[in-house]
Amino acid sequence: MHGVTPLKPGMKLAGPAFTLRYIPAREDLDSGEVDNLKDVQRVGIEQVQAGEVFVIDARQDTRAGTMGNILAKRLQMRGCAGIVTDGAYRDSPAIAAAGMAAFAAAMNAHTNKTIHHPSEIQVPIACGGVAVFPGDILVGDSEGVVVIPSHLAVAVAADAMAQEEKEDFLLEKIGAGASIVGTYPADEQTLAEYEEWRKNRK
Amino acid sequence: MHGVTPLKPGMKLAGPAFTLRYIPAREDLDSGEVDNLKDVQRVGIEQVQAGEVFVIDARQDTRAGTMGNILAKRLQMRGCAGIVTDGAYRDSPAIAAAGMAAFAAAMNAHTNKTIHHPSEIQVPIACGGVAVFPGDILVGDSEGVVVIPSHLAVAVAADAMAQEEKEDFLLEKIGAGASIVGTYPADEQTLAEYEEWRKNRK
Amino acid sequence: MHGVTPLKPGMKLAGPAFTLRYIPAREDLDSGEVDNLKDVQRVGIEQVQAGEVFVIDARQDTRAGTMGNILAKRLQMRGCAGIVTDGAYRDSPAIAAAGMAAFAAAMNAHTNKTIHHPSEIQVPIACGGVAVFPGDILVGDSEGVVVIPSHLAVAVAADAMAQEEKEDFLLEKIGAGASIVGTYPADEQTLAEYEEWRKNRK
Amino acid sequence: MHGVTPLKPGMKLAGPAFTLRYIPAREDLDSGEVDNLKDVQRVGIEQVQAGEVFVIDARQDTRAGTMGNILAKRLQMRGCAGIVTDGAYRDSPAIAAAGMAAFAAAMNAHTNKTIHHPSEIQVPIACGGVAVFPGDILVGDSEGVVVIPSHLAVAVAADAMAQEEKEDFLLEKIGAGASIVGTYPADEQTLAEYEEWRKNRK
Amino acid sequence: MHGVTPLKPGMKLAGPAFTLRYIPAREDLDSGEVDNLKDVQRVGIEQVQAGEVFVIDARQDTRAGTMGNILAKRLQMRGCAGIVTDGAYRDSPAIAAAGMAAFAAAMNAHTNKTIHHPSEIQVPIACGGVAVFPGDILVGDSEGVVVIPSHLAVAVAADAMAQEEKEDFLLEKIGAGASIVGTYPADEQTLAEYEEWRKNRK
Amino acid sequence: MHGVTPLKPGMKLAGPAFTLRYIPAREDLDSGEVDNLKDVQRVGIEQVQAGEVFVIDARQDTRAGTMGNILAKRLQMRGCAGIVTDGAYRDSPAIAAAGMAAFAAAMNAHTNKTIHHPSEIQVPIACGGVAVFPGDILVGDSEGVVVIPSHLAVAVAADAMAQEEKEDFLLEKIGAGASIVGTYPADEQTLAEYEEWRKNRK
Repeated sequence: MHGVTPLKPGMKLAGPAFTLRYIPAREDLDSGEVDNLKDVQRVGIEQVQAGEVFVIDARQDTRAGTMGNILAKRLQMRGCAGIVTDGAYRDSPAIAAAGMAAFAAAMNAHTNKTIHHPSEIQVPIACGGVAVFPGDILVGDSEGVVVIPSHLAVAVAADAMAQEEKEDFLLEKIGAGASIVGTYPADEQTLAEYEEWRKNRK
Repeated sequence: MHGVTPLKPGMKLAGPAFTLRYIPAREDLDSGEVDNLKDVQRVGIEQVQAGEVFVIDARQDTRAGTMGNILAKRLQMRGCAGIVTDGAYRDSPAIAAAGMAAFAAAMNAHTNKTIHHPSEIQVPIACGGVAVFPGDILVGDSEGVVVIPSHLAVAVAADAMAQEEKEDFLLEKIGAGASIVGTYPADEQTLAEYEEWRKNRK
Repeated sequence: MHGVTPLKPGMKLAGPAFTLRYIPAREDLDSGEVDNLKDVQRVGIEQVQAGEVFVIDARQDTRAGTMGNILAKRLQMRGCAGIVTDGAYRDSPAIAAAGMAAFAAAMNAHTNKTIHHPSEIQVPIACGGVAVFPGDILVGDSEGVVVIPSHLAVAVAADAMAQEEKEDFLLEKIGAGASIVGTYPADEQTLAEYEEWRKNRK
Repeated sequence: MHGVTPLKPGMKLAGPAFTLRYIPAREDLDSGEVDNLKDVQRVGIEQVQAGEVFVIDARQDTRAGTMGNILAKRLQMRGCAGIVTDGAYRDSPAIAAAGMAAFAAAMNAHTNKTIHHPSEIQVPIACGGVAVFPGDILVGDSEGVVVIPSHLAVAVAADAMAQEEKEDFLLEKIGAGASIVGTYPADEQTLAEYEEWRKNRK
Repeated sequence: MHGVTPLKPGMKLAGPAFTLRYIPAREDLDSGEVDNLKDVQRVGIEQVQAGEVFVIDARQDTRAGTMGNILAKRLQMRGCAGIVTDGAYRDSPAIAAAGMAAFAAAMNAHTNKTIHHPSEIQVPIACGGVAVFPGDILVGDSEGVVVIPSHLAVAVAADAMAQEEKEDFLLEKIGAGASIVGTYPADEQTLAEYEEWRKNRK
Repeated sequence: MHGVTPLKPGMKLAGPAFTLRYIPAREDLDSGEVDNLKDVQRVGIEQVQAGEVFVIDARQDTRAGTMGNILAKRLQMRGCAGIVTDGAYRDSPAIAAAGMAAFAAAMNAHTNKTIHHPSEIQVPIACGGVAVFPGDILVGDSEGVVVIPSHLAVAVAADAMAQEEKEDFLLEKIGAGASIVGTYPADEQTLAEYEEWRKNRK
């Protein structure tokens, strides 16, 4: 996702996506009291399952929040693994302090109904310029959020672990003074060293 | 709608919206031959009714076309009242020449599958920064496209006609040298003159 | 000015600036009927003198018009030399057809009070990224609008005429097959030829 | 205000606005030594009263600073409640370290005279996309800055305190496991609990 | 290329790229008289060969022109097939009137030396967001400019001709009332019809 | 440089520029295994000298990283004084933790080959909107990065030291309650005090 960062350094998340799609607000739809049993955002909040990541398509429009700290708290209480928006949050400092992983494009104290109308939950969405389908695996860290299509998640996870282990080895070697030539990408000798290193590590 | 203009000056359209929503393309979904019976864009094209306006949510992303002239021609043959996208068209000059009203944010010769994935038809969408629900009335002219919620369409149309008639009168009066003071907004005397003018006009 | 173009190719304007500054609209200020004797935009329209150019600072915000065709008509009737905005106009096709030179960054059918609040007339403004002081000379053609500080206007105009005459000569020479070397910039021989050409031209 | 954040997390400000408006710089105006008795920015700095917030309209242009740490220090010495710009500051780290609340859209080491010309003080301005009139109340925290029209300030402050108290109650309840249904918005039973809670709290 | 359009509808170009790269101007480099024998832009203009397209990398910065009509005229006299910039031209109306195909992102009357410094000719460049190597084939029409890597040019041209012929057939069929189902993409029967149509056409 | 900030507050760098220029990626060039002896980025990494700053022209495109932590580690091992990009890094948190000064416009976990193609090393580049020539002196701190043309570096450094000393004095004076009038800019008396202060300081 492009332009989506954690509210606080060190926040991490991983889990399947529960999606919410906003469209632009319209005056005749988005005034009056919110009805928790009909408002699509509210319905979604009470349906998300423990371990899921609540992901919001805000059309990268940060002129208003897409959620505040009371609703974020409710998600946290339901066991939500984190929240992601390509818009903004209201009460961002409070959300950041509450501890659940939260990623956004900006902070904005305005209430969402002036800009955003909740349209659907659990449909494919765009978030930060990439497609997110319900159930896709989201992985977030200090660098941002990556989306892994659900059918590729197992393979990608295995690859990622192998890749990370290899990068640990390479960093160690580069950190000891090796040139990148022969090392990164690895030639046969480096690959052999790596296999040795892996054996010793276990 | 913001940033959406006709391909050719003078193009006009009016009709209820038939909506198509794109999300960002994903390599594993958007390669291979298109199946007209499954591809959401293609299904929509064969479902649109005569008099409807085909409206596309392209997330204001103009890096690729959202339709080319063969599909536009098919829409024209089905009696479509026009096409509107907040992205781009491929073969824009040919589409402009074919005569059906066509509005877009840009021209772009790239095929849409690299950037856009057709996700749904006949759902609420965002287009040019405003909400469009299926059945909303779109009215387009040289200045752009306006969206009228379907339940307001009759009232808005009556207002618009009355407004236009009044502006004709005001323009005539201003064009004859009247100050805006007393005229625009109209004071009682100007309103009386207007009633007289209307009677004589019929 | 950056991003400001004529509504119709071929439109030209020249004249001293009469400035209007908009700030963002605020709900409690910008609703209710307009009072021509107090509304700053309206007051300005009835104060502009024949030959002046009406210039609007719209903060490059094109989400609504900054003037429609009735007010533009009134300016035209007052002998205004043209209108310039770094925002948009409402009724742009009608304004373009009415004949007075009109320059803008975009077209937009929305009324200005939702986005813009008229704040002051005849103060220094920003328009298209450059400063415009009341009385500065604006010169516009198909390429856009240039601002000349009033105290430099005479010198700049003389320079521009001399420059244009020289460029006519250079274009003639380049069009006859001359290399740019020795010609543009001109060496002594070319300058001598130019002096000859000027004499013969008169 | 859109895109305006504190230089350091935790900075807070509240106070009436003292406004400064910049327009784009012009070479013939913005070179040579600054005269503190004539330069509009400098005059403003020596006029601001203790408790006021110094607010700058920089047209959201961050290509140069709008103030550096020496002038910011002078404002701090005068008892200024904080500084806000929709442009950038020069010497931002030093300004952040000096302790006075400071909000900006960016940091930029370039001196302001290349991009900005101080035009007026104590006029209505645009800052971060919203209108600020002299005397409007600015309230800033980690999330950004909010502008409250001066005639609404008392009412808004009372509302805000009541709202905050109610949100404390709701957060407590949601944090104890309550669903949002019946709680947010509050039904009659929840409102009764809230009244009880308020009594006990005092 | 993204955002690059012809100065006049109907302009077409095709030919190998001759590239010019600009970097941002620097005051100490870009003042004083231009020396045609050293200035990289000028040297390039006198080196381009007949049939080549002069392509400029302006970093999509349109705040100043990248060439004016005298230099454009010289290119035209040298037999240049056209000029392309992802910046702006000065004297755009005159360039458009002169007849050589010219594509740009904008018009701007400011001279290039304030913003652009000519750095190199005949190196790989970025133009409109895509890579252009010297010798790549550029093809431009009303829709914009497409870049074809030189080693693919023959294959792409053959494909394009076949594609265009097939699209002519498909448009004819769709224009006669055929559904896209079975036609686009073409099934076996449609392909057989197409082969027949091609034979009869010749 | 515009929009380029340190990965971690407090990072500082100073040194001559070693430049790398990226152009947009092209599918046929940027797939397959990287060859350290031919890939321009890799060649550059093994050529940079101790004390130099590795500077990358990424066309301000942050849709992918321009370097990851293994290559950054190698630069650190070679004694590189820091890295600067107007794009993004991959593995930004790891790069920030490794200690070498690193400045960028954003973080992005995507690998660079999808967006960027390394074109040349040690040529003049654009970075953050300004020109950087090989050997120019880059100075970076919490506020960003400034570029000093190499032939001006000694003079600029001397000026900067004098300027900084003077600003220390002025801050002290302003912090003691002086008005800016007479102080900043300094009048004769203040200059005399400053000379005294300097003598006592040494």
